[in-house]
Amino acid sequence: MTENHRNATSPTISEVAAAAGVGRATVARTLGGYGSVSDSTRDRVMRAAKQLGYRPNTIARSMTTGETKTLGVVLADVGNPFFAGVLKAFTDTVRQHGYDVLVLSTDEDLTKEADAIGVLVDKHVDGIVLASAASRNAPPPYLELVRSRSIPIVLIDRLFDGIDMDTVVINNREASREAVSVFIARGHRRIGFVWGPVTVEPATGAAAMHKIIAHSLSSDGERLRGYLDALDQAGIEFDTSLVTHVLKNEQQATRAVLGMLSLADPPTAIFATESDALVGTIRALRQRGLSYPGDVSLIGFDDSSWATVMSPPLSMVAQPLHQLGTLTAECLIDRIGGGNTPVAAHVLEATFVPRESVAEPSR
Amino acid sequence: MTENHRNATSPTISEVAAAAGVGRATVARTLGGYGSVSDSTRDRVMRAAKQLGYRPNTIARSMTTGETKTLGVVLADVGNPFFAGVLKAFTDTVRQHGYDVLVLSTDEDLTKEADAIGVLVDKHVDGIVLASAASRNAPPPYLELVRSRSIPIVLIDRLFDGIDMDTVVINNREASREAVSVFIARGHRRIGFVWGPVTVEPATGAAAMHKIIAHSLSSDGERLRGYLDALDQAGIEFDTSLVTHVLKNEQQATRAVLGMLSLADPPTAIFATESDALVGTIRALRQRGLSYPGDVSLIGFDDSSWATVMSPPLSMVAQPLHQLGTLTAECLIDRIGGGNTPVAAHVLEATFVPRESVAEPSR
Repeated sequence: MTENHRNATSPTISEVAAAAGVGRATVARTLGGYGSVSDSTRDRVMRAAKQLGYRPNTIARSMTTGETKTLGVVLADVGNPFFAGVLKAFTDTVRQHGYDVLVLSTDEDLTKEADAIGVLVDKHVDGIVLASAASRNAPPPYLELVRSRSIPIVLIDRLFDGIDMDTVVINNREASREAVSVFIARGHRRIGFVWGPVTVEPATGAAAMHKIIAHSLSSDGERLRGYLDALDQAGIEFDTSLVTHVLKNEQQATRAVLGMLSLADPPTAIFATESDALVGTIRALRQRGLSYPGDVSLIGFDDSSWATVMSPPLSMVAQPLHQLGTLTAECLIDRIGGGNTPVAAHVLEATFVPRESVAEPSR
Repeated sequence: MTENHRNATSPTISEVAAAAGVGRATVARTLGGYGSVSDSTRDRVMRAAKQLGYRPNTIARSMTTGETKTLGVVLADVGNPFFAGVLKAFTDTVRQHGYDVLVLSTDEDLTKEADAIGVLVDKHVDGIVLASAASRNAPPPYLELVRSRSIPIVLIDRLFDGIDMDTVVINNREASREAVSVFIARGHRRIGFVWGPVTVEPATGAAAMHKIIAHSLSSDGERLRGYLDALDQAGIEFDTSLVTHVLKNEQQATRAVLGMLSLADPPTAIFATESDALVGTIRALRQRGLSYPGDVSLIGFDDSSWATVMSPPLSMVAQPLHQLGTLTAECLIDRIGGGNTPVAAHVLEATFVPRESVAEPSR
C-alpha cells in the first residue's frame, strides 16, 4: 500500500439509489433513519448499500445532528496503570452507547491541559472527562470555556473547591487514615509519608501543612489529610521531617526515604501513596540493607498483581479502577442525554488489602 | 452546570465580520488560512475573533479539507502496561503534528476489532494503528476495507504473512532466543515456556509446534520460535510438556506451572513471555515453597520497575515501548503526508536486562 490518494470515496447516495431502483430521498431517509420507508423498500436499499460498500459519512451526519458521538478524556499520563485502568473501563462502557474516545495526556502540565481542552472543544466532542493537574483552590479558566459551550464534563480523581461540576473521586482521606491507623494499631509512632506536597521548605507543623494542602492537587492533599487525621486521633505529634517534599518520581522517593532513615529517630513504618513512591521506598530500604516488615513496615497505594508476589507480599490500598471508569461513563452519558439530576459528587471507597508487610516496630 | 442545551454556539463568521468591519469572505479567508489578506486586515480579524471567543468549527473544516486531524488506535487492552506505554509515546508524538487519537480496545476479540475498524473508517480518521488479535496466517477482511478507502495504516506488535503493509514490531524471536540461551549457558536443559499457544492437545513434537506457530498470533509465535531456536542450537530435545497450552491469564499460568513442577523431570528454569505469565509463575513457585533462582531460575518479558525491587531482582527482556510508539507515529504521519517510500517492516530490538534470577540448576 504505497499509494496514498486521499480522495477514494464511498459510493454516493445517487449510486445506491440507482442500484436499489428508488429515489435519492428514499435512500437518504432509509440510511439516515428518519421519515417513513416501507419494510420492503428499506430491505432493497440496505441490500444495495451493503453490496456497494456504502458507509455513512459521519462527518456530514454530525453537521446535521450537532453530535459527534465522540468523547474526550484528558489525563496526566495514559501510561500510568491507574489512569490506564480507569480509561479501559470508561471506553468499554461508553462504547456500548456508541461513543468513541479521544485520549489526551498532559504530563501534569497545565499548558498542555489547556491545549487539550481547546482541541476537544474545537472537535465538538459531546462530553469531556478531566483529571486536572490544577490545585484544588485554582480551577483553571478553560473550565469556563467548557461551561460556556454547554459541553457536559465530569472531573475525575481531582476536584476543585467551589466549582459546581460532576465529580467522581475516591475517598482518599479515609483510605489514607485507615492505612496509617493500621500502623498505629501495631504500635508505630514514627510513620513516614511518601509523597507529601512539593515545597521548597518543609512545613513547620501540622497547621502549616494544612495550609499547603489547601493549595494542593486534591487527591494528594486528601491522602495527607488522612495521615494527619490518623496521627491526631492517636495523639501522635506531627513531625514534618517524616513527610517528603520532593518531586514525584521514583528516584526522588528513594533519596527522600534514605534521608528519613538517617534521622536520629527514623521511621519504623512508611506509607507510600503511589506506586512509584512505593518502589522508590523499597529501593531505599534495600540500599540500606533493611527489610520489611522486620526493620520497617510498609503500606502502598494502588494495588497491583506484583504486590502479591513480592516477598513478603505487600499490604496495599486498592482503588476501584473499574468502578471509577464505569461510573464516570454513566455520569457523563446521563448528562449528554440531558439528565437533569443535580450536579453529583460521587465518592467511591478504596479497600485496604492486608498482606504481610506490617509488623510491630523493631525498636 | 445542570442545564444541558446542545445548541450553544461559537460566534458566527458574520458576527466576526461585523466586529472587524470587513466582509464575511475576508473573515473566512483569514480564519481558514487561504487566499490573500493584508497584514492589517488579518490583525483586525484575529483581534475581533479572539474578543468574541471565536473557535474554528473543525467539523465544517474537515468537510472542506477531507482531513479530520484524528487518528485511530486499535489495540487489545489499553489497561495493559505494554500497550499503555506504546500509546503514550504515540499520542505524544502525533500531538506535535496536530493530530488527536481515538483509542479503541478489543480485548483480543475479532468481532470487536472489526467493529473498531468500521468506526474509524466511518469517522474518517486520517490514519489507523492496529495491533490485531488475528493469527498471522489469517489477515482479517477489514484490512481490505481500510485499503480500499486509502486510509494509511500501520500494524504494530503483530504482523501478517503475505500482507504488504507498514509494520512496527520488535524482534521477538531473537529476544526470546537470547533469554533462553542465558539459561542454557548456565547449564539448564529443562526449560519451561509460559505462555505457549492455546491448544486443546499439546503439540507432539517440535515439527508439530512449528505448524501451530504458523497459525498463531505473530508476537506469541515468534517468542516460541526463539525458544525452539535456542534448544536446537544447544542440541536439547524439545519436550512438549514444558510448554503451556492454557488460556493466557495469571491463574492459568499458575495452574500450568504447578503441573510442570509435578513432572518426574521438572523444569529447572522458566521463561515467562508476558507480565501476567511471570506473576502467575512466581505464585506457583511460592505455593510449592520453592524460591528463585535457588530452586528454579526465572526470566520474564516486559521489564517494569517492580521487577527491580523483587527479591531477588528479576532478569527481564525489556521492550522499547517508547521507541515503538514514536516510530509508529512517524511512520503513519509520513504515509498521511503522502510519503512514497516503499512499505516498511520496522523491527526494533529488545534488550536483555540481567539481574539476579538466574543461577546454575539445582539438580
